[in-house]
Amino acid sequence: MKTCGILGGMGVDVTGEMIRRILDATEAKREQDHLPLLINHNPRIPDRTAALLGGGEDALPALTASVAVLARAGADFIAIPCNTAHYYYDAIQAATPVPVLHMLKASVSQCAVVQPGAAVGLLATTGTVRTGLYQGLLADAGLALHVPDEADQDRVMAGIEAIKSRHGLKAARRDMLAVAARLISAGAGVILVGCTDISVVVRDGDLAVPAVDALSVLAELIVRTAREDPS
Amino acid sequence: MKTCGILGGMGVDVTGEMIRRILDATEAKREQDHLPLLINHNPRIPDRTAALLGGGEDALPALTASVAVLARAGADFIAIPCNTAHYYYDAIQAATPVPVLHMLKASVSQCAVVQPGAAVGLLATTGTVRTGLYQGLLADAGLALHVPDEADQDRVMAGIEAIKSRHGLKAARRDMLAVAARLISAGAGVILVGCTDISVVVRDGDLAVPAVDALSVLAELIVRTAREDPS
Repeated sequence: MKTCGILGGMGVDVTGEMIRRILDATEAKREQDHLPLLINHNPRIPDRTAALLGGGEDALPALTASVAVLARAGADFIAIPCNTAHYYYDAIQAATPVPVLHMLKASVSQCAVVQPGAAVGLLATTGTVRTGLYQGLLADAGLALHVPDEADQDRVMAGIEAIKSRHGLKAARRDMLAVAARLISAGAGVILVGCTDISVVVRDGDLAVPAVDALSVLAELIVRTAREDPS
Repeated sequence: MKTCGILGGMGVDVTGEMIRRILDATEAKREQDHLPLLINHNPRIPDRTAALLGGGEDALPALTASVAVLARAGADFIAIPCNTAHYYYDAIQAATPVPVLHMLKASVSQCAVVQPGAAVGLLATTGTVRTGLYQGLLADAGLALHVPDEADQDRVMAGIEAIKSRHGLKAARRDMLAVAARLISAGAGVILVGCTDISVVVRDGDLAVPAVDALSVLAELIVRTAREDPS
């Protein structure tokens, strides 16, 4: 049994949702059958989209320092339930000897499993979209990509800010579903929920096509990785 | 700003509920305004009621080791959202230089504030009830106590086991509310939700009298303590 270290707090409601999805993905009959988790819930990490696009404070020093806390505490591997933070994946992994799961690679693989060959509609932060975090991975997998037009991307980002501030969640959910519906009209055969804040308000089953939720993909990967070592 | 270390996983859904109540108790406009938390979610700690009553494995070594992980990770103070684990409070505090909050003392104080002088009806594990964890504190506060009769206490404990196993939550909630109603009929003017598993299914407002929920009391205490030091 390996212990997962989770760097959470991006946003604040994602940590609880991450735990819930790990619990749901775990076969267990009683409390003591569940996986131990070490969690650094650190909402003080500078906003990733602002850092990447708006000249906001660099998020990398806080990310590597927060991962180091988990490593020192005894984590055998690390999960970072924030899609945009994966912009810094290589630098984060280079700064720690502890293996870091790659949520985005696993999510793209899952898209190809759920709807083989289907074009992917992406709901994500403007930071994730504009830096092309998913584009290269999807191209490598031979999958076409639909991203929202500029007005819709602004709606998605406003919804993410609303979820992060814990106000206006219903309107945010409504906007996300409307943007997803337009991506489906444009040809998307699967919706990739590529921002864990959106995972808090949108569920698989909410849409006319299957959704691949990066947070659920990460939860399944955490459970598998924790159980890899039977010791 | 002080960093709270949370020893969670007792039971598994309590950790997410603890985070949510801390978020709800925090004045914040944006993600970065929220408190950092270090969380050791450790469901492998031996069952406390079994340890105290049934000759189950001693829970103290795992509790002190789990607190030590949080101390090493940099926690400035510790919170343990499990009422029954407070049986070991003195031994846990003796084993770490980091201050540990006392959820039960704070909860009894809150009962006296919410319904001054009212008799308290206790919903808690059989471990908490039989070892008298709340009895002495309530007597010191001059508050009378009503505990469920034996058959009702068995219903409460069965409900807690159901919540811990993540099955039968609706029936567990129904049983908890029925037992609480009988405590109120017997004279309780406030219901003390003194098991954090019960906190997952019963809310203030569910009953004919006010509820004091130890998990919410702890959340408020964590927010206050984290902000004590303005550094």
